[in-house]
Amino acid sequence: MSDFDDLTERMRAFTRARDWEQFHDPKSLILALVGEVGELAELFQWLPADSAATLALEDPLRTRAAEELSDVLLYLVRLADVLEIDLPQAAVAKLASSEARFRPEHFHGTAPVKD
Amino acid sequence: MSDFDDLTERMRAFTRARDWEQFHDPKSLILALVGEVGELAELFQWLPADSAATLALEDPLRTRAAEELSDVLLYLVRLADVLEIDLPQAAVAKLASSEARFRPEHFHGTAPVKD
Amino acid sequence: MSDFDDLTERMRAFTRARDWEQFHDPKSLILALVGEVGELAELFQWLPADSAATLALEDPLRTRAAEELSDVLLYLVRLADVLEIDLPQAAVAKLASSEARFRPEHFHGTAPVKD
Amino acid sequence: MSDFDDLTERMRAFTRARDWEQFHDPKSLILALVGEVGELAELFQWLPADSAATLALEDPLRTRAAEELSDVLLYLVRLADVLEIDLPQAAVAKLASSEARFRPEHFHGTAPVKD
Repeated sequence: MSDFDDLTERMRAFTRARDWEQFHDPKSLILALVGEVGELAELFQWLPADSAATLALEDPLRTRAAEELSDVLLYLVRLADVLEIDLPQAAVAKLASSEARFRPEHFHGTAPVKD
Repeated sequence: MSDFDDLTERMRAFTRARDWEQFHDPKSLILALVGEVGELAELFQWLPADSAATLALEDPLRTRAAEELSDVLLYLVRLADVLEIDLPQAAVAKLASSEARFRPEHFHGTAPVKD
Repeated sequence: MSDFDDLTERMRAFTRARDWEQFHDPKSLILALVGEVGELAELFQWLPADSAATLALEDPLRTRAAEELSDVLLYLVRLADVLEIDLPQAAVAKLASSEARFRPEHFHGTAPVKD
Repeated sequence: MSDFDDLTERMRAFTRARDWEQFHDPKSLILALVGEVGELAELFQWLPADSAATLALEDPLRTRAAEELSDVLLYLVRLADVLEIDLPQAAVAKLASSEARFRPEHFHGTAPVKD
């Protein structure tokens, strides 16, 4: 069984054991995801941009970052389950689309600009 | 190779082929993640809460939701790679912690309150 | 002096008194804003969509919501100051643009679709 | 009339003229706010942290940043109206609370750590 199938099953069982399916409509799950992304942002907000990665290799930040990344992932997996989306398959397809859209020869060393 | 290892490798190769490692410090990647979560939120914001899941089973919403969930996942996987965090392992540990914290007998049918 | 000028001045003085200008680059302030939006989302995430507004008229949610909305506003005002943007003026201009774009006769009762 | 009262009235009239009150429950408005914060994040995500403020003084970024800050503010004002919260008053109270909590003599040059 893949990592994603395993996490999906575990989150589904966790939810059912607490009768929490009633709370897991898509909009509520996206708000929960936003809450966890917010906690992740708070961990890094005041760190110097160029030393943040190094600082995060050491505790206590390392453990806290792992927890917040995990919370984001768990709600993402749960949302994909509710929406009946095969997330790893969709992600591989999306990345293939980005590979075609951002040709290395045109975007080498240049970040794409959002407008 | 697991789903996560595969996605991590693909995102790493995608980034290197474009010389984009220079942009992928943690704070920038979190902002990119926020951008994708925002696009996901926009897909659902005005839908009725109780029919959103059903509406998302049909196109065009189904395809768009899969794309945005994928973008969130891809930046999350990339951020975990930069931070040298084993994301599926961390997520299993976090879920085990939540299972112990939110005992089914105390939280059955009751959403935990954030304060 | 307008509300915004007053808040801008207060946030500027608050920041200077703590020598925190060094932390207030735009990316860091956006991450701080994201953190506060996340806390706001957590307050509402599991509430029923159709009774959330009524529930938020009573404490403890009323006080907590006012605090989180305030935190979002304070970082927004601070970010506008750092970017030298006249926020109330810009907001009036943006709303005028939306009034022209979403003609009442075309969008009556219909939420605009993001694609 | 204050800036906030003016914006609140304009957003209320804008909403009524389109019969959009039906979409403006708190959870939906928070998702809309998240969408706009996401667009703001996308404008800055790949800019160097230490030159972002300077780059944002010039167009096209200046105009785009003003638009996104405005969108965030407009949804924030609308949400405060729906929740019957006096936002400028609440923000002044919250800032007073932060002034007491983060004494300049203890936090001079030191960012508060979130845990």
